[in-house]
Amino acid sequence: MKAVHLEGGRVSVRSVARPKRPEGFALIRMLAAGICNTDLELQRGYYGFSGTPGHEFVGEVVESDSGALLGKRVVGEINVACAKCEWCARDLGRHCPHRTVLGIVRRPGAFRELLTLPERNLRVVPASLRTEEAVFTEPLAAACEILDQVRIPRHKEVAVLGDGKLGLLVAQVLHAHGARVIQYGRHREKLRISEAAGIETRIASKLPRKHFEYVVDATGSRDGLAQAVSMTRPRGTVVLKSTVHGLVPLDTAPVIVDEITLVGSRCGRFEPALKLLRAGSVRVDRMITDEFPLSQAERAFERAAENGVLKVLLRP
Amino acid sequence: MKAVHLEGGRVSVRSVARPKRPEGFALIRMLAAGICNTDLELQRGYYGFSGTPGHEFVGEVVESDSGALLGKRVVGEINVACAKCEWCARDLGRHCPHRTVLGIVRRPGAFRELLTLPERNLRVVPASLRTEEAVFTEPLAAACEILDQVRIPRHKEVAVLGDGKLGLLVAQVLHAHGARVIQYGRHREKLRISEAAGIETRIASKLPRKHFEYVVDATGSRDGLAQAVSMTRPRGTVVLKSTVHGLVPLDTAPVIVDEITLVGSRCGRFEPALKLLRAGSVRVDRMITDEFPLSQAERAFERAAENGVLKVLLRP
Repeated sequence: MKAVHLEGGRVSVRSVARPKRPEGFALIRMLAAGICNTDLELQRGYYGFSGTPGHEFVGEVVESDSGALLGKRVVGEINVACAKCEWCARDLGRHCPHRTVLGIVRRPGAFRELLTLPERNLRVVPASLRTEEAVFTEPLAAACEILDQVRIPRHKEVAVLGDGKLGLLVAQVLHAHGARVIQYGRHREKLRISEAAGIETRIASKLPRKHFEYVVDATGSRDGLAQAVSMTRPRGTVVLKSTVHGLVPLDTAPVIVDEITLVGSRCGRFEPALKLLRAGSVRVDRMITDEFPLSQAERAFERAAENGVLKVLLRP
Repeated sequence: MKAVHLEGGRVSVRSVARPKRPEGFALIRMLAAGICNTDLELQRGYYGFSGTPGHEFVGEVVESDSGALLGKRVVGEINVACAKCEWCARDLGRHCPHRTVLGIVRRPGAFRELLTLPERNLRVVPASLRTEEAVFTEPLAAACEILDQVRIPRHKEVAVLGDGKLGLLVAQVLHAHGARVIQYGRHREKLRISEAAGIETRIASKLPRKHFEYVVDATGSRDGLAQAVSMTRPRGTVVLKSTVHGLVPLDTAPVIVDEITLVGSRCGRFEPALKLLRAGSVRVDRMITDEFPLSQAERAFERAAENGVLKVLLRP
């Protein structure tokens, strides 16, 4: 079967053996998978990754222990946890120190025809959701994670910095929550997606200083954190959503003088994400720019890295 | 009268006019003032400061509107706020955007024979406290600020990084709070001060990784933040207490992956600090290394910057 292979910055497609299904795992036929900024960072050397990337997917269960899953369309939590440690006991397997992570840490990812994941990681996709919508469950869960970490009162102003894939999802999640979102970006056409959802947007040429109590940095850029800090009022909170490879220069003086809180934020629970998609509170239909078969993964990665491009999907 | 002058990194002593006392202000004769790391950072160019530094002091009120303060020994909150804005209304004049700050922002400091501060900024020093103890009220308040910002449950393990003046105060404050403090430093003789207070200490040669839920960076060094992050477990909190001039290189990846919260922390309320000093819960008597008259301020600054030196006091 075909599998994408990433090594030394190069994307190729290989023919590999069909994966063995361990006990408690399901064998899943990939239906669609999304290329995430993290995949592009992996290509740039983040985590020293080599192997099959891919952690956003929708698939069909073709083999499993539990009959209930067989033949079902599923999405999957990407952290494969030990189920025994204190983190797992707290339902925070996402922080299990023994975890592997699909397509990121010591586990081949979803950019291949067949993959395996523990059955407990899988969530059945509601029939009303198209595969092209459900493939956004994982990044949408990451956006929802903000609300699991930071208590943002409804009707509060929140600035979202960045109009990439994650920025657009974060803006919609916070808007659906009831916050008054103002999204700053550089691409008029991307911001239109948020505007269609009723979100206020601004071209990020001049950013207000010390104005917001809550700012989310979803720029994906090295400068985003400093910009976010400068926009935050004293005692305010900046949520870090930008995965950047390498060191970020931070002037800690304004963080200390204004007593700002910075909150690192990563993966989230799938349930709130599926709920928002099913309710139509978050719309992702305009966020897919292109799609390619697995065999053209190299082109797909190039396309995903182009300026102005949103989600690029891979198909079997 | 004599006043210290800092400009372009040089410390000198000048003869200046006696300050005028505005309405609502007290005229205060300085009895003792402490040199803080922030003063040394101002000397290095932090804030582009020039003028009279000094923000830790004990003085005697020689003129005031209110008779109750006259002749009293006082310490003073260093932020001179507008008393009109929303921050002041919330009793957070420390974040008033119109504030000046004694010896730091647009207000000559305490390293001079006479100074003025609003009467509302002053706290009378209890008779039982010696001037050499009360002069620690301001930095001790900064240490207490941590507990106003972060809810640290009693009996929780907390790591304090750094055995300088602020690190020693932070360790004692958290110990008095009931936390199980482990302090990491490089100077056996400084750590003995904490040990005498019953605090566990370690020479910071090898730091445990991902161990603590709460870590305070009081190293005063550019590397402190990265060290603090590396010691913090997932979902843990790092308190930033190190004022460093310039950019700090931060690898945001572990902050995001482990969803760590970073909290900038600055000045604090004086009341908890005076309470701890009066109760003898925090001991500062072994923290004064040296003292100099104002006329020898240059030597005093040199001494304060020497390795192994703790608090250096100035006297009129």
